Amino acid sequence: PLRRRHHDRLVITLRPVLNILGLLIFGLGAGMLLPAVVDVAARNPDWQAFVISALFTGMSGLLLAISCAGELGSSLSIRQAFLLTALAWLTLPAFGALPFLWLGISYADAVFEAVSGFTTTGSTILIGLDGLAPGLLLWRSVLQWMGGVGIIVMALVLLPYLQVGGMQLFKTESSDKGEKVVSRSADLVRLIALIYFGLTMLCAALYWVTGMNAFDAVNHAMTTLSTGGYSTHDASFAYFTNPLTGWICIVFMIAGASPFSLMIQAMRGRPLLLWRDPQIKALLCLLAATSFVAAIYLGITQEIGLHEALLRTSFNFTSIVTTTGFALGDYTLWGPPIVGIVLMLTFAGGCTGSTSGGIKMFRFIVFFGTLRNHLRMMVRTHRVVSTRYADTQLTPDIAFSVLAFLVAYLGSVGAITLILTFFGLDAMTAITGAATAIGNVGPGLGDVIGPAGNFSSLPDGAKWVLSLAMLLGRLELFTVLVLLDPEFWSR
Amino acid sequence: PLRRRHHDRLVITLRPVLNILGLLIFGLGAGMLLPAVVDVAARNPDWQAFVISALFTGMSGLLLAISCAGELGSSLSIRQAFLLTALAWLTLPAFGALPFLWLGISYADAVFEAVSGFTTTGSTILIGLDGLAPGLLLWRSVLQWMGGVGIIVMALVLLPYLQVGGMQLFKTESSDKGEKVVSRSADLVRLIALIYFGLTMLCAALYWVTGMNAFDAVNHAMTTLSTGGYSTHDASFAYFTNPLTGWICIVFMIAGASPFSLMIQAMRGRPLLLWRDPQIKALLCLLAATSFVAAIYLGITQEIGLHEALLRTSFNFTSIVTTTGFALGDYTLWGPPIVGIVLMLTFAGGCTGSTSGGIKMFRFIVFFGTLRNHLRMMVRTHRVVSTRYADTQLTPDIAFSVLAFLVAYLGSVGAITLILTFFGLDAMTAITGAATAIGNVGPGLGDVIGPAGNFSSLPDGAKWVLSLAMLLGRLELFTVLVLLDPEFWSR
Ligand SMILES: [K+]
Ligand SMILES: [K+]
Repeated sequence: PLRRRHHDRLVITLRPVLNILGLLIFGLGAGMLLPAVVDVAARNPDWQAFVISALFTGMSGLLLAISCAGELGSSLSIRQAFLLTALAWLTLPAFGALPFLWLGISYADAVFEAVSGFTTTGSTILIGLDGLAPGLLLWRSVLQWMGGVGIIVMALVLLPYLQVGGMQLFKTESSDKGEKVVSRSADLVRLIALIYFGLTMLCAALYWVTGMNAFDAVNHAMTTLSTGGYSTHDASFAYFTNPLTGWICIVFMIAGASPFSLMIQAMRGRPLLLWRDPQIKALLCLLAATSFVAAIYLGITQEIGLHEALLRTSFNFTSIVTTTGFALGDYTLWGPPIVGIVLMLTFAGGCTGSTSGGIKMFRFIVFFGTLRNHLRMMVRTHRVVSTRYADTQLTPDIAFSVLAFLVAYLGSVGAITLILTFFGLDAMTAITGAATAIGNVGPGLGDVIGPAGNFSSLPDGAKWVLSLAMLLGRLELFTVLVLLDPEFWSR
Repeated sequence: PLRRRHHDRLVITLRPVLNILGLLIFGLGAGMLLPAVVDVAARNPDWQAFVISALFTGMSGLLLAISCAGELGSSLSIRQAFLLTALAWLTLPAFGALPFLWLGISYADAVFEAVSGFTTTGSTILIGLDGLAPGLLLWRSVLQWMGGVGIIVMALVLLPYLQVGGMQLFKTESSDKGEKVVSRSADLVRLIALIYFGLTMLCAALYWVTGMNAFDAVNHAMTTLSTGGYSTHDASFAYFTNPLTGWICIVFMIAGASPFSLMIQAMRGRPLLLWRDPQIKALLCLLAATSFVAAIYLGITQEIGLHEALLRTSFNFTSIVTTTGFALGDYTLWGPPIVGIVLMLTFAGGCTGSTSGGIKMFRFIVFFGTLRNHLRMMVRTHRVVSTRYADTQLTPDIAFSVLAFLVAYLGSVGAITLILTFFGLDAMTAITGAATAIGNVGPGLGDVIGPAGNFSSLPDGAKWVLSLAMLLGRLELFTVLVLLDPEFWSR
């Protein structure tokens, strides 16, 4: 009875949440040793910043984990799961910003860069990437790579169970039952990490074979698979002139934006499931259609061949739709239709259960299905039509969740846009800045934050707002919004 | 049995639809005599254009009505009602464009101006309004005034019965029962027309008293109450220097954007219903909050007094939110926050059952209510929370309709934006052009179609697309979208 009363007093039992959080922070600290090693090898004094940050981060994480130990493996309640998700994406970038701070970057810039990294957004405030120390460049890539695997796990294990934005559609054995969500998903996490690591290595090898040096190959492979988009060169992918490198990148951006649950199935001998998946189908159709139309437009208006035109459009459109954010040339100069297409694609997103952000394909599929039904039922009021997603019957509950998510998503873009104008941003920068941050895409449109631009010149206030917007988008909005309701914290 | 088989062969019986349509066209033709009279009085030869157009239009309408007579007063099926609505808003502007064509305006321009008029959008392709013949100016105002009363009737009588975008929330005796929707609503139409006419006269009188000449007063009263926004001067409301004229306009723009069903109740001795209405409350709060914040911003950044600042912000914001579109100065030059606020307000819209366009207040109220519930049910899965709108319990069906409308609305803005960029429009002109057309607001943002700009320089293709967008918005999207589904036309 004593323990019971103790539980009653605290609305949400924090111990298991903080225990897992501590372990995650410890893992992040361990990751900081990678750039330290690289800087030592390059005889760059920056290694000290990474070692000190690693020690501080690792110790903090370990202390937190140990002081809250003892409940790992037990169940997480819904509120604990929400809290863990939000806390993880809030604290990990905060620790991830430490090396940047140590290297003399301002507080707002360091947090922006770390949040942009960990959320795999890829918007950057750093100029002159080509001249930066290798450790710093690698840390940006590692942040994205870790954030990438983090979001896959979250999307496969936690979000379906939390019913965020229609993701209950993807409930699996691991997310089906509330109890023991942590221990049951350990196998899944191990498989995901294996596939993620394998694909990254394969991508790096192919980059290296087609002309990148080893350092660039590893960095770009990490930021390709995580659909993060940080590059080691200001020119982004335009730095690499071999067209084959571009096509390889396209393939691995799509891999990073594909559902990792299906990749597990493919590894278990059912690769056809990937091909039959409605999300992957929709993604490939969207990319093929837009790239082809735009390539024809480019071929007519610019003096370039069809292969060059098709590489340019498919690379940049794949980069935007998968929310990677690499750029191959400044596409904002290629005419209004290209700008219009990129603007719309900034909202698209890849597949759920992947590293990509944005609205994501399954929500469009569900929306168009339910809209068609809705229109039919308006005309023939007595008929009940049902909608399916692949082999699943869409319940009104899922359709409603998806619609609510879509409105909340577009409404959030509007709200962030409005706030950004109060920091003096012009309308175009504000709109595309909000859209690219919430979608975790990376580049915006316009002179300031376009693919040839940079976020460094924005006022600090705008950087903080955009950092929050990136987190909001990465956590699929609702995971943040539920915490803002006072009822969440009451009994 | 013979009649029955005849009905079976035609999927939709067109006779009653075409009969009503004929009467509406006849009414429009009669309206063309007004500018004819004015031009005769002004000894302007344009009167011939109006008389010829009036004769052609009136005769066409009469012939159609007579040839399809005999079923007036009987019931309209749901599909007939959809078809009538779409046909009316397609054919009336087509006839309304005749006088413009006769006066030498190109085909694309004439249709754009007529559609913009009849949908009460108010975007114009005419330059040098101050020097135009009075008949032409009056015809623009009459088009908006007629379109305004048309949309009120449609919103009160037809749309709730058709369950368009959550408007089933506003079912009344007249729209409750499918049968005899035509005859039952005759009283309602008469009352609406009376109030609409009375308010217009009152507005004109007040305009005249505060310094407008009689012609300007009548024209602007018609385009104020219809929240249309056509002016007789290029400078729009900046032409009238008396601040009192501006405040009077604000009041009547709000009146035009208020639910006319409640005005009928007010006339019947229950004025408090107006005050207690959630939509009017939301509208006034939104206007007060944004105008006040922006006025403080203007007071700080510009060298103007508080009254001047408050008049400027409340006039322009009221004009945008009520979707009137009058401009008092070029607010795009007043700083990024003002542009940001106007951009967001372009989506707002007034109250349903009024002349205003846009998303409309009740949908925001329903959305925020259902979103809050949705978030709470995500956290406490076992609790069922219910949402209310005023005294009405919100059914899942209504909430779903509203959400589907919101997504379709924002999606349509995106689609039209994309299409406009293919006609060479820059991103800002395309986005705000799409938003202002679908919202029936009038002015956009940017150099081309901003409040100081004009739609004349756009390519013809863009004008056609915008004309369709205005119709799509005016018909609350779904009324058009149901017609695009092949199933609508099948048995
Ligand atoms: K990205
Ligand atoms: K208007």
